[in-house]
Amino acid sequence: MRLEDLPLRDDLRGRTPYGAPQIDVPIRLNTNENPYEPSKALVDDLAEEVRRSAATLNRYPDRDAVELRADLAAYLGHGLTGEQVWAANGSNEVLQQILQAFGGHGRSALGFEPSYSMHPIITSGTSTEWVDGMREEDFTLDPGKAVAAIEEHRPGIVFLTSPNNPTGTALPMATIRAVLEAAPGMVVVDEAYAEFAREGTPSALTLLPEFPRMIVTRTMSKAFAMAGTRVGYLAAHPAVVQALLLVRLPYHLSTLTQVAARTALRHRAELLGGVAALRRERDATVAWLRAQGLTVADSDANFVLFGRFEHRKAVWQGLLDRGVLIREVGPPQWLRVSIGTGEEMAAFRAALEGVLRERA
Amino acid sequence: MRLEDLPLRDDLRGRTPYGAPQIDVPIRLNTNENPYEPSKALVDDLAEEVRRSAATLNRYPDRDAVELRADLAAYLGHGLTGEQVWAANGSNEVLQQILQAFGGHGRSALGFEPSYSMHPIITSGTSTEWVDGMREEDFTLDPGKAVAAIEEHRPGIVFLTSPNNPTGTALPMATIRAVLEAAPGMVVVDEAYAEFAREGTPSALTLLPEFPRMIVTRTMSKAFAMAGTRVGYLAAHPAVVQALLLVRLPYHLSTLTQVAARTALRHRAELLGGVAALRRERDATVAWLRAQGLTVADSDANFVLFGRFEHRKAVWQGLLDRGVLIREVGPPQWLRVSIGTGEEMAAFRAALEGVLRERA
Repeated sequence: MRLEDLPLRDDLRGRTPYGAPQIDVPIRLNTNENPYEPSKALVDDLAEEVRRSAATLNRYPDRDAVELRADLAAYLGHGLTGEQVWAANGSNEVLQQILQAFGGHGRSALGFEPSYSMHPIITSGTSTEWVDGMREEDFTLDPGKAVAAIEEHRPGIVFLTSPNNPTGTALPMATIRAVLEAAPGMVVVDEAYAEFAREGTPSALTLLPEFPRMIVTRTMSKAFAMAGTRVGYLAAHPAVVQALLLVRLPYHLSTLTQVAARTALRHRAELLGGVAALRRERDATVAWLRAQGLTVADSDANFVLFGRFEHRKAVWQGLLDRGVLIREVGPPQWLRVSIGTGEEMAAFRAALEGVLRERA
Repeated sequence: MRLEDLPLRDDLRGRTPYGAPQIDVPIRLNTNENPYEPSKALVDDLAEEVRRSAATLNRYPDRDAVELRADLAAYLGHGLTGEQVWAANGSNEVLQQILQAFGGHGRSALGFEPSYSMHPIITSGTSTEWVDGMREEDFTLDPGKAVAAIEEHRPGIVFLTSPNNPTGTALPMATIRAVLEAAPGMVVVDEAYAEFAREGTPSALTLLPEFPRMIVTRTMSKAFAMAGTRVGYLAAHPAVVQALLLVRLPYHLSTLTQVAARTALRHRAELLGGVAALRRERDATVAWLRAQGLTVADSDANFVLFGRFEHRKAVWQGLLDRGVLIREVGPPQWLRVSIGTGEEMAAFRAALEGVLRERA
């Protein structure tokens, strides 16, 4: 029996699983991971907390993760409480729950591509129709065109990604506001990379009191350097959180995940300390790439999109041959590099110089 | 703004979140948890493994959980390999992925109620139509009627639960075989409680080589006493696992979950050691309840369904007033008690005697 012999859902036929290649190379700058390992103090604390909570592992976890949600609210600030916060196994699961509650067959979700490639995948995985609102040539979002697309399609959910992935740039608040005023349903502002934004970039959280159908999603994978613990979360009106309780799988968040996330939040001074260094490294990378004559999108994230290459696959492969794995993703002719440590970025620069010289 | 003001999916309107009350009482026999806490040796080992793996928590987990799946295959036996095994955050997520791959709008899933109450919830959560095939008065499943229901509805997925929850009894292999021969799509045999079955009850795993559209689901929550780690898994044809890769959220299973599950599997002699004691306690509970003149369903699980009570709510409340929390679930007039330690079951018996005396 082969995959195609199975009674698979029609829209899945011919697809391949999502995911960047997990290749074992010295320098991995392909999935926007944070390069900084947790400190010994954090690891010790985590092991101790796991030991303490392990005695109850025969019992189900707190189904509503009440303490974790309160801790996340306190971290976000803006006067938020645990009733306005929800958490799940990565922001992917948070997004899937939003789609299950507010999307589904007969409804659509509108995004503006190129953007986070999981948005359309999770959308169609919940039988929701995906509509691409398109961006301008320079990856910006024209507010007038965004509003026109919303009025044309009347989507149940609009996705905004700020800072956007894979292009890297945060949205102007005026654009977010225009979308919020026009949208007939829910508006998700995916702020997975918010902590990396350039100085003076406000969070959409500031708009929450005004727009109760807005949901701001975040993750501990990036700024908190906790991709391995899989914790995504959101802030929204308490009624939105109540809606998500109707679709969440009971006990979706394990005791260990709740403990690890709370431990990481206690060590946030250390974890977020890396963010400043990564922002500096990011700005330096943007400047260096521009100095090479390349085109680079403004970045508010821990990655940089650069181009344009007639044969981006060859450039990607040339870097990989030199031990540096970056990502072939987003618009054709562009490549995305995640920001690593100073040493990793030096290796990236050396490798790219080699590739550009070879291909010149 | 209230929940009803939100643009919620129509079929969710008026619903309440799933879940047994999480009430803090001395004796909790309501969610079929295993009463045995992990040993100090296991807790030490787990803390050590977490410490070791924590150094990579800034990186995403192994997306395909290759080592865990190999370990689970080795545990299941029957010549299975990791390519035939898939794992997720609890069997609920495993079931949701199956529905996403093989169900969806325009398809139906058939189950035989009373059965695991999450089956219809997860089914409708994926826009799949739920069809109830019905059981006999005595909770058995008539193979002829089951086949007739399959031929009438042509479901994309059939759910069999063996041992069944909340009734407790395993299905005869002849019934499973009859369903497998008739089903036009996938057949899920939910064996969450398989390890508790009475002597001589075979697993549906023995039928896997013959029926490549069968999926056997399991969990580490019950026999492995690991409800807090949230690990469910399945065994199926490798092509079925490939299909699930198309719908799984990437990196769905955290590093900590993978590590904890593998640690628990290494300690399986200890963890499964409790199963024999729970089976003895279960058989004694069945005998004692029958001696009280109550009707009791045969149990192959770590719980017992008993009745019939004209006012089961009053009996449930009477037990709770005496500090014993059981579950009001399944067919009216019946109650379900999870099997705890010898002390917990003595407390349950004393409480029930009190309630029955009071109401006599």
